[in-house]
Amino acid sequence: MNRTDMLKDDVLYKQAFARDLPAAKGRENATPKYNFATGHNNPEAIPSVALAEAAAAVLRREGKSLALYNLGGSALGYRGLREVVAEKLQKYRGIACSADDVLITTGSLQGIDFVNQLLLDRGDTVIVEQFTYIAVIGKLKTMGVEAIPAPLDAGGIDMARLEDILAGLAAEGRRPKYIYTIPTVQNPTGSVLDMERRRRLIDLALKFQTPIFEDECYADLIWAGEAPPSLYSMAPDNVIHIGSFSKTLAPALRVGYLVAPWEALGQILALKSDGGTGALDQMVVAEYFREHFHTHIEMLTARLKRKLDVLLEALDREFGTLVEITVPVGGLFAWLKFPDDIDVRTLSKPAAELGVAFNPGNEWSVRAEDGLHHIRVCFGLTTEGEIEEGIAALARACFRATGRPASSSNIVNAA
Amino acid sequence: MNRTDMLKDDVLYKQAFARDLPAAKGRENATPKYNFATGHNNPEAIPSVALAEAAAAVLRREGKSLALYNLGGSALGYRGLREVVAEKLQKYRGIACSADDVLITTGSLQGIDFVNQLLLDRGDTVIVEQFTYIAVIGKLKTMGVEAIPAPLDAGGIDMARLEDILAGLAAEGRRPKYIYTIPTVQNPTGSVLDMERRRRLIDLALKFQTPIFEDECYADLIWAGEAPPSLYSMAPDNVIHIGSFSKTLAPALRVGYLVAPWEALGQILALKSDGGTGALDQMVVAEYFREHFHTHIEMLTARLKRKLDVLLEALDREFGTLVEITVPVGGLFAWLKFPDDIDVRTLSKPAAELGVAFNPGNEWSVRAEDGLHHIRVCFGLTTEGEIEEGIAALARACFRATGRPASSSNIVNAA
Repeated sequence: MNRTDMLKDDVLYKQAFARDLPAAKGRENATPKYNFATGHNNPEAIPSVALAEAAAAVLRREGKSLALYNLGGSALGYRGLREVVAEKLQKYRGIACSADDVLITTGSLQGIDFVNQLLLDRGDTVIVEQFTYIAVIGKLKTMGVEAIPAPLDAGGIDMARLEDILAGLAAEGRRPKYIYTIPTVQNPTGSVLDMERRRRLIDLALKFQTPIFEDECYADLIWAGEAPPSLYSMAPDNVIHIGSFSKTLAPALRVGYLVAPWEALGQILALKSDGGTGALDQMVVAEYFREHFHTHIEMLTARLKRKLDVLLEALDREFGTLVEITVPVGGLFAWLKFPDDIDVRTLSKPAAELGVAFNPGNEWSVRAEDGLHHIRVCFGLTTEGEIEEGIAALARACFRATGRPASSSNIVNAA
Repeated sequence: MNRTDMLKDDVLYKQAFARDLPAAKGRENATPKYNFATGHNNPEAIPSVALAEAAAAVLRREGKSLALYNLGGSALGYRGLREVVAEKLQKYRGIACSADDVLITTGSLQGIDFVNQLLLDRGDTVIVEQFTYIAVIGKLKTMGVEAIPAPLDAGGIDMARLEDILAGLAAEGRRPKYIYTIPTVQNPTGSVLDMERRRRLIDLALKFQTPIFEDECYADLIWAGEAPPSLYSMAPDNVIHIGSFSKTLAPALRVGYLVAPWEALGQILALKSDGGTGALDQMVVAEYFREHFHTHIEMLTARLKRKLDVLLEALDREFGTLVEITVPVGGLFAWLKFPDDIDVRTLSKPAAELGVAFNPGNEWSVRAEDGLHHIRVCFGLTTEGEIEEGIAALARACFRATGRPASSSNIVNAA
């Protein structure tokens, strides 16, 4: 007699399921050989030994405090980490803040959830960048919130067109709840908003009485000179700022942060019902970055820059002029544009057959049709050799699907 | 010119707030000297040195995998920890499961959120125990779900009365989405459901086609003999099982787990949008408990049992027959009943003035009025000396508020 025979009904779960659930996941598939699809980081750049030493030191010194929720301290998170965040934001992002203005979040994804819970009701409207973080698009959809795309160019949000959108909404009596932007190494396009546009954006936010939701997950990973100061530093009462250590250290560590005036923080704490962010992740990031933030970032960005150079060379060699590349000044992804008659969705299957995964642009677009000719290529995880092989394989897949690129080294390789 | 003068409007946040937010939190107050109010653990029982060694070992061995989301593995969580959970559940809770049946959660609170997202829509009905975990009551309220209390006695849910409730609902055409129970060291009453009631509960679940949601956060901390097998082990297709390492190791580590058939797990994975549970918390718990689970539990329960004995002696000495005590057979709290003419809400302020915090029973009751004469006293955090002093202070506070207990050592102490 097997398990189900013993039971009157083996689908009690299913008949109790909530309405409108997303499609269930299957058991996991194998990992692709050339994984350009996720913002994984560079394994070689993980300082395993230094992290082991940091973990041992902080646990010997403060381990007993694990017995208490929030390590016996504030629900804002581990004080040592909030101090590291505040110092980093002061030094590199122009933000005048102390540890008391910082809420530690379980990754920036929880920061996004908190801002959404704080500000959004079903039926609300928000402005997001035309191409943006896939998770934000998904979360807004789940919440029944309308996301209106702000057009982007090589410099980020086109402020004239944003003003038109805000004026149009105001004329209808609609006020968006926030303008969500990734101003410094935009995801997925890689652009950096200059000072003039930053000032203009803040003016528009004030004019149309709409707060700015600033996501700076990638801002510490800039190699082409310093980034302009954060929007939060320019208008702290009108911006909520989030960031993360996923990109600067490691995404498996679920440690992000949210900075806002107490009017917002105290309200978010009232919504928080998670018992805190994982203590060891917080303690070890603080212990390591208190001493090593600057040197780590220098080492990591140098490695990422080298990988980007390899990627750009490989793209030029394999695709020639077929794809246009927006060369990023930081971060760990590049944004490519194919010709208008190539729908990137047709590339996914042949690419997967050759072991290549990438992000099709439609999934990173508020209006899917805007991204049908773009792909996002992440280069943090793959080695330099894998980047070369993977881009050659991607070119072969593209040739199989579209007959192009016709004359590049990949065709020879495929023979 | 200060910050607000520069801005057109300093309350952009507030006018954008969502509807129906809970009251905002203020800046934190000082920690009470005698903190019986939260399920903190025993600081002396935190193996700081062994955890430091475990952290260093696992980071040296597997640190590079931090570069990948989910450590490059399944979204179910760190495989090493899922193996430890599966082995522990097989050995101690009678559950036939493998690592593939286990989802790691960011504390059991996230497990509760997942089950609620999976099964509940606004307007739904669930059954919960008359006295139950405060966070569950709050989360159901936020979701607009009606929680119907199942009456409890010293042995847990009164099954005859539960059957009446389910039959009554069925007669109205209503089927609750789940029966939430903490069967093994019930929170807050400390009861353990015996085998006969467990069988009866499963029969009722099948008869009324309502799945069981089993929360076993405290089941590993039993000192009076072995616990009956988990409900999940008796009816795996009709029970969702959650547990946590907060009570067995440390609550600042946000590591819990959820066990269910794939029909539920695959659907929960589709709802999951958090990027995973903190890697270091997962890795260190796995590394330490793979070798030390049994010895740690023996050490911890012996310490907790000793603290409980000190608490019971102190209660007897200070309160005499004024309070009835439900003596728990495990866990880290006791449930006390005051006379029917003492409303425990009147004790909180005088107790706080003497540095004592406790959980008033009304907050742990589905119908607040059921708990007006009960309090929950957590004894994990306080030392044996603090327990003695704190209970004496609580008796003084009670005397100030109610004139009772009239003749106990505390009155002498207060002179």
